[in-house]
Amino acid sequence: MSQQRFGACLPTFASCADRFCLSGYGGGAETVEGMLELATQVPDLAGVELVGNWHVNDDNIEQMRELLKAKGLQVPMMVPDLFTQAKWGRGSLAAPDAETRRAAVAEVKKVMDWAAGMGCEKVDVWPGQDGFDYAFQADYVAAWRWLVEGIRECADHRQDVEVCIEYKIKEPRTHCFVSTAAKTLLLVEEIGRPNVGILIDVGHAFAAGENVAEAIALVNGGGRKKLSYVHFNDNYRQWDDDMMVGSVHTIEYLELLYWLRRTGYDGWLTLDIFPYREDGIKAASESIEWLKGMFKVLEKMGEERIASVIASADATEASKLLRSALLPTGRG
Amino acid sequence: MSQQRFGACLPTFASCADRFCLSGYGGGAETVEGMLELATQVPDLAGVELVGNWHVNDDNIEQMRELLKAKGLQVPMMVPDLFTQAKWGRGSLAAPDAETRRAAVAEVKKVMDWAAGMGCEKVDVWPGQDGFDYAFQADYVAAWRWLVEGIRECADHRQDVEVCIEYKIKEPRTHCFVSTAAKTLLLVEEIGRPNVGILIDVGHAFAAGENVAEAIALVNGGGRKKLSYVHFNDNYRQWDDDMMVGSVHTIEYLELLYWLRRTGYDGWLTLDIFPYREDGIKAASESIEWLKGMFKVLEKMGEERIASVIASADATEASKLLRSALLPTGRG
Amino acid sequence: MSQQRFGACLPTFASCADRFCLSGYGGGAETVEGMLELATQVPDLAGVELVGNWHVNDDNIEQMRELLKAKGLQVPMMVPDLFTQAKWGRGSLAAPDAETRRAAVAEVKKVMDWAAGMGCEKVDVWPGQDGFDYAFQADYVAAWRWLVEGIRECADHRQDVEVCIEYKIKEPRTHCFVSTAAKTLLLVEEIGRPNVGILIDVGHAFAAGENVAEAIALVNGGGRKKLSYVHFNDNYRQWDDDMMVGSVHTIEYLELLYWLRRTGYDGWLTLDIFPYREDGIKAASESIEWLKGMFKVLEKMGEERIASVIASADATEASKLLRSALLPTGRG
Amino acid sequence: MSQQRFGACLPTFASCADRFCLSGYGGGAETVEGMLELATQVPDLAGVELVGNWHVNDDNIEQMRELLKAKGLQVPMMVPDLFTQAKWGRGSLAAPDAETRRAAVAEVKKVMDWAAGMGCEKVDVWPGQDGFDYAFQADYVAAWRWLVEGIRECADHRQDVEVCIEYKIKEPRTHCFVSTAAKTLLLVEEIGRPNVGILIDVGHAFAAGENVAEAIALVNGGGRKKLSYVHFNDNYRQWDDDMMVGSVHTIEYLELLYWLRRTGYDGWLTLDIFPYREDGIKAASESIEWLKGMFKVLEKMGEERIASVIASADATEASKLLRSALLPTGRG
Repeated sequence: MSQQRFGACLPTFASCADRFCLSGYGGGAETVEGMLELATQVPDLAGVELVGNWHVNDDNIEQMRELLKAKGLQVPMMVPDLFTQAKWGRGSLAAPDAETRRAAVAEVKKVMDWAAGMGCEKVDVWPGQDGFDYAFQADYVAAWRWLVEGIRECADHRQDVEVCIEYKIKEPRTHCFVSTAAKTLLLVEEIGRPNVGILIDVGHAFAAGENVAEAIALVNGGGRKKLSYVHFNDNYRQWDDDMMVGSVHTIEYLELLYWLRRTGYDGWLTLDIFPYREDGIKAASESIEWLKGMFKVLEKMGEERIASVIASADATEASKLLRSALLPTGRG
Repeated sequence: MSQQRFGACLPTFASCADRFCLSGYGGGAETVEGMLELATQVPDLAGVELVGNWHVNDDNIEQMRELLKAKGLQVPMMVPDLFTQAKWGRGSLAAPDAETRRAAVAEVKKVMDWAAGMGCEKVDVWPGQDGFDYAFQADYVAAWRWLVEGIRECADHRQDVEVCIEYKIKEPRTHCFVSTAAKTLLLVEEIGRPNVGILIDVGHAFAAGENVAEAIALVNGGGRKKLSYVHFNDNYRQWDDDMMVGSVHTIEYLELLYWLRRTGYDGWLTLDIFPYREDGIKAASESIEWLKGMFKVLEKMGEERIASVIASADATEASKLLRSALLPTGRG
Repeated sequence: MSQQRFGACLPTFASCADRFCLSGYGGGAETVEGMLELATQVPDLAGVELVGNWHVNDDNIEQMRELLKAKGLQVPMMVPDLFTQAKWGRGSLAAPDAETRRAAVAEVKKVMDWAAGMGCEKVDVWPGQDGFDYAFQADYVAAWRWLVEGIRECADHRQDVEVCIEYKIKEPRTHCFVSTAAKTLLLVEEIGRPNVGILIDVGHAFAAGENVAEAIALVNGGGRKKLSYVHFNDNYRQWDDDMMVGSVHTIEYLELLYWLRRTGYDGWLTLDIFPYREDGIKAASESIEWLKGMFKVLEKMGEERIASVIASADATEASKLLRSALLPTGRG
Repeated sequence: MSQQRFGACLPTFASCADRFCLSGYGGGAETVEGMLELATQVPDLAGVELVGNWHVNDDNIEQMRELLKAKGLQVPMMVPDLFTQAKWGRGSLAAPDAETRRAAVAEVKKVMDWAAGMGCEKVDVWPGQDGFDYAFQADYVAAWRWLVEGIRECADHRQDVEVCIEYKIKEPRTHCFVSTAAKTLLLVEEIGRPNVGILIDVGHAFAAGENVAEAIALVNGGGRKKLSYVHFNDNYRQWDDDMMVGSVHTIEYLELLYWLRRTGYDGWLTLDIFPYREDGIKAASESIEWLKGMFKVLEKMGEERIASVIASADATEASKLLRSALLPTGRG
């Protein structure tokens, strides 16, 4: 992780809505160009994710490529929109309706093409609408099969773009099918294609009740190397609050950053925050500074020392190591 | 509870948005008149809540009264809008900004007047935007004082309209100040006005980790009589999913309906559901049928028998009583 | 599921302790024979689980077989004790200490032999002590490898006994490694032995935030057939309260029983309850009556009708179907 | 808070049991004298809590006073045992059985006398067994009245000892009556005696879903001054894990320590940890060092600067302030 590349999703620089205040709470830009302009004002921010149809389409791809270049921003990830339109309300890749499933696959393929056209090697497939709200509403076995077949077909569309599956346990459905790291890994293994990996959104993992360090170790350790991308944000564990990094979890964040490094992840470090009531530039800048500062704390702790404490399995030693690196000096 | 009056909030009949799909998932009406027309198609639905400015204002109050009359619908509750506009984003009655607090009080008073004009005796004060998202962001002591003073001022505006305080532990803020039944009761006691009561939204209570039966007993039992109104819906306990009644909690719903009755609540039974992907008429009808059916289960259990089982504190007796009333016959 | 065989774990008939009241709250038997005697008084109870060393050992195996026979009880499952002794405090099959890991494997093998000697075809491997409490305390990658290797070695010990892995997200550790259905399925697939399956404890699944119906479909549906055994109890979702069946979840229990049936599970239906303050015979009897009653509700709903409602993915139809079968008649 | 007095409960130095491993995991002392000896080896530890009957009784009170003096330890708190014996299994102060309620009151009074005899001014009344496990098992209205009357009678027993009510949302019952800060404050206000205050156990507050800073502000701010005592530990929010301070919550701990100070709390800072698998001396020492270190972080942040950031309600400013004090320097 010698080279740290920080990215951000565009809602960081927009006016974020919730279900009560549909206008959002103000302060963000209204156009893509405006959002990109705000993005350039965040120190160390090197790239932004773009959403298919919202930001990129057949007509503007050349123009967007120029615009990004002019702003000095890369595009680490492109996102097929499988979640903001009423047509996906009952599902996308795993919708009960076969035509909707075909439309979802087509949507992903189209964005894979756009990604290739933008020089972007990854697409984020987040099947957020694929799930259920009520009991006796879903055929779990069929849904799993549709997910396997649909994503496999996307992956086979072109090998030069990687399909990164993003999991989330709930929202917008009360239950999403692709919910945890382990389940996503099962899915990836059943799909069985080299260009299918996993996107861990740290906040989604917290909300799923995961120890994120362990989730990272599961999908990227032991020779698996299935972690393709990471989203950073924070929350209070019961909902995807999309808060600034550093706001809630300190110890667990340190541990997960350590395991990112230990399992050899060297990809983008991308913010996925919704600064509803905050200035987007400040919220992104703070988040990046927290990440950089936490990596420095890990350096203070020392890789060898950390590995030795873990091997000892002694919680009081772990406590001492963390405390010494984090707090003003006490007993060492 | 000889006479059961069922009501509904209007989102039941609208196209409900979430933060991803701002258009909503379709199916609802787009105008107030359209929503009321749908409402009339729900068997046993006798009234609807209206939101200030959205549904009622100085200019249309006479017209709305006529419309409701024509539709045969009463208005059990009117709601000041303290939550759908960007101006309330950092708080309403307990906003750090004094001018915003004054505007919030004025908004409540205005809706109290409209309520009186509509022949409605209650307003629902839900200070959903009053709270905080991050640590070191709120002055809890000041916020409490502002809530006490602001609501007291509203209550003193006119005695013929009751201010019903609705609590919720989170959303739209990650933490709302007025969060639990006990805290709301403390607030009501400190406000010290006879026309201030409590609105228990069953889903909010579930999400706050409450046993709702106990919450009802706390605010309405032991001679307190502070429960002024009830909202019904259901959820999975971590978020205000606003699902149909009957969808998740069966046993706990039976117990809370029992305690509503036992503590003498005889007010409206109003649905506050967001049928994002469901037909609103069916969702409301199902919810009302569940409520009616659960009251019938309580009748089967029998008031005396229930009281005797509770007095015994014997969980196996409670199990047997519930089972006998709910399931096809087994060992009695 | 024409033939329903109900079983129970022995704590049902003992005086259950918690960390404050180590004596337990009284009422249970103190000897194994006493517990078995109580078990015989529960209608429809056909078998009991036994724990290695606690109930069965090299010296008493013949005697225990006779005793069980005399009582008319079968032994559907035997449990290696990897969790009640201080020596397993830092782990068993995945302990950081290699000698402890070997001892754990030996313990499982020994109980597999005893099981065979008792005519029991399954052992329940619950690695409850394998996990971590604090950050930077566990080597997740090594732990996973140790679990794979250890359980594989157990499975290879003898093919006539099936190793059933029981998952639980926490307790006695704040985090257990083998935590969810999906993770356990990953583990089973990596172990790659035919005599390794999964034990779903319904309460553990609730506490892991799972929709249990979906967990069952995942491990036993789509041709996987990895569900070997089921434990029944209930809880409030945040802890393994080990309550009587029927006490909290009604709708979700109906759905999970349906998916047990739909995926062809025809094994034992075993209670794992801790009736701390209840009479064990009554608690077990109630639990079995609830299970039988809920199966009857499913019959009222009708397999075809359920399948058709699921295929429709219409929550209001699901609501109506459940309500009609569960509550006194309303609108159909 | 110029003078910080650190205390500890004795389980810190014992072998802590859980419901599976009743012997505990080893490492602690077996006698009170042994525990006290371990306590003296913790730097900065000035006092220990004692439990009535377990540590102090009519026969040993003189001897214990001498022993404590010899060890140089004070007794900031004495605890009536209302929770470790089967006789309290269905409740103590709010038991359905009147005789049990009388016995519980007598127990508290007796320990108040012993406390006075030991020169200790406070007793910790934790009605942990007062609650319910199942629906339809409790008469919430009666239970509240019994709590009010019972605790009032205790308080009236002698004015020189303060009754500190400790709340907890669950365990050993699935639901305890005295569950949250707000509910406890309601109870204290209804009891209406000057020598009744509140004990906030930080872990209990986390498990109750509280922002602990806000809970402290509620009971001790705005002129209320009802916070009498504090227990420190940490957990993962769903259970009273009784972990070392510093292990999970960093930001929220800083905020709660700030509000302790801001509302003028100057009492004991007592550890209530269960180091099941850790060395008790190290676990206590680490916890105290974390507390001291976090107070130093607050000093770095600066009282005026904190107050100004709170007044601004700007989360990005709060983030910057925390980050600058906690992490190696980045952009200020």
